[in-house]
Amino acid sequence: MQSFRFLRIPSFSPPNALFFVSQPPHLLPVKSISRISTKNFSSQMESSLSSSSSKLLFRQLFEKESSTYTYLLADVSHPDKPALLIDPVDKTVDRDLNLVRELGLKLVYAMNTHVHADHVTGTGLIKSKFPGAKSVISRASGSKADVLIEPGDRIPFGDLFLEVRATPGHTSGCVTYVTGDEPDQPHPRMAFTGDALLIRGCGRTDFQGGSSKQLYESVHSQIFTLPKDTLIYPAHDYKGFNVSTVGEEIVYNPRLTKNLEEFKKIMENLNLPYPKMMDIAVPANLVCGLQDPTS
Amino acid sequence: MQSFRFLRIPSFSPPNALFFVSQPPHLLPVKSISRISTKNFSSQMESSLSSSSSKLLFRQLFEKESSTYTYLLADVSHPDKPALLIDPVDKTVDRDLNLVRELGLKLVYAMNTHVHADHVTGTGLIKSKFPGAKSVISRASGSKADVLIEPGDRIPFGDLFLEVRATPGHTSGCVTYVTGDEPDQPHPRMAFTGDALLIRGCGRTDFQGGSSKQLYESVHSQIFTLPKDTLIYPAHDYKGFNVSTVGEEIVYNPRLTKNLEEFKKIMENLNLPYPKMMDIAVPANLVCGLQDPTS
Repeated sequence: MQSFRFLRIPSFSPPNALFFVSQPPHLLPVKSISRISTKNFSSQMESSLSSSSSKLLFRQLFEKESSTYTYLLADVSHPDKPALLIDPVDKTVDRDLNLVRELGLKLVYAMNTHVHADHVTGTGLIKSKFPGAKSVISRASGSKADVLIEPGDRIPFGDLFLEVRATPGHTSGCVTYVTGDEPDQPHPRMAFTGDALLIRGCGRTDFQGGSSKQLYESVHSQIFTLPKDTLIYPAHDYKGFNVSTVGEEIVYNPRLTKNLEEFKKIMENLNLPYPKMMDIAVPANLVCGLQDPTS
Repeated sequence: MQSFRFLRIPSFSPPNALFFVSQPPHLLPVKSISRISTKNFSSQMESSLSSSSSKLLFRQLFEKESSTYTYLLADVSHPDKPALLIDPVDKTVDRDLNLVRELGLKLVYAMNTHVHADHVTGTGLIKSKFPGAKSVISRASGSKADVLIEPGDRIPFGDLFLEVRATPGHTSGCVTYVTGDEPDQPHPRMAFTGDALLIRGCGRTDFQGGSSKQLYESVHSQIFTLPKDTLIYPAHDYKGFNVSTVGEEIVYNPRLTKNLEEFKKIMENLNLPYPKMMDIAVPANLVCGLQDPTS
């Protein structure tokens, strides 16, 4: 049995902040969606390890049936508390919007990383229940949405923003959303990888314009080039992991640590069943999960 | 359709840090488990909102069948990378230990918040698979373990530590583990509340020495007195929420926002079924999920 040392610490009373806000604001003008280059990551300008925390409120939400993660991000230092949801699921829209309202957030964007085949997106339903929120998906997805983003775009919410990186291969229109590489943005960076990179895995490449070669190149050029401490937040996890890092996946991903030829062989021999929801989900998701409520 | 502004940002190359470490180390001597007072939180010494980040590596892991969260915490600034697991489940021990090994951590403690009735703890199994790790539970639980902690104890891992707070009511031996209230400890603070406080809910109080009055008093005196930005990490969630805050639960918890008499009525009328795993889990969990492998 372990022995104890006795020590007293001072008592305290709680401060008044209702929600978690960790550091003073970095007030910059609110940005609209803008385009940046994501093609060249070869320069030697190292991102600093000295952190500049932000006013990010972050929640990871889980839908059990399809094992889908939905992400809520908001800038709670901004007077409007502008927020966005990444990969909402139709069945959990009420849960998500209730949380948005409880936290006093203003939902600006309901976004998808790609056209999902395993569940119906909640973005259309969200628009009908939260007027003002805009649906977002990549132009390359061939889907209908309010905002069709392209590689290099910036998606702002308050003083924070996400970069858009093209990471096709699971589908031809997959993107990864990455928090900004500036001192007032969250550190470490966070990458919302959809099905391109999963924790110790990756999305299948055998339908919806999938290509194992393209997926391999996407992950290696657009995700594995991010700082190694970048947090990986995928669209799904089936084993109960909630996050990984670029550094971990570079070393431990059982598929993407292989060379291209080996990776292609692995992906060709997965012998996965046809997705149960595919014939319902894909047509629905091409129009945000439902016909535009205003049309 | 939204219009775009075009903007170039500088390219970058990744730094060398493999895992996420956000700020410079605060090197303090390694502490052994020690005892502190958690009884008096009435003084007016406000915890500062100016943050001092730490070298905490943190993972939330999920076991789907019992909807249990297991938490991995480590001090990755310390040469040994000492780590602890809170509420590991027997079925996911291999997953958890594999992650511990991949991250290069040294598991010091495998801890329970209480004697679970819905799953078998993994702490005994962990001891047999990771020599050196010690099992931890409260003395008040009446269980067998290597370290029997009491309210006010400090559980150190490297330069970080958890405080022990007694939060009985779901069971008579329930504790909440809270990160330290010192500048070199994580900010906001994090509270691992077991089944005492769930997100927008709480554990049942109709068996294992449960008491609705005691639970109400525990949560109000030991958890709701923490700073409002303290992150709440419960042992379970059934709706896909991963975290809450003290401030949110004070305002939105549908049970614990009531007065004591209303709370007692709610808890008396839950009419929950007898837990399926109870007759297996409770006797097993009184001995860390299995007989001590050395006995």
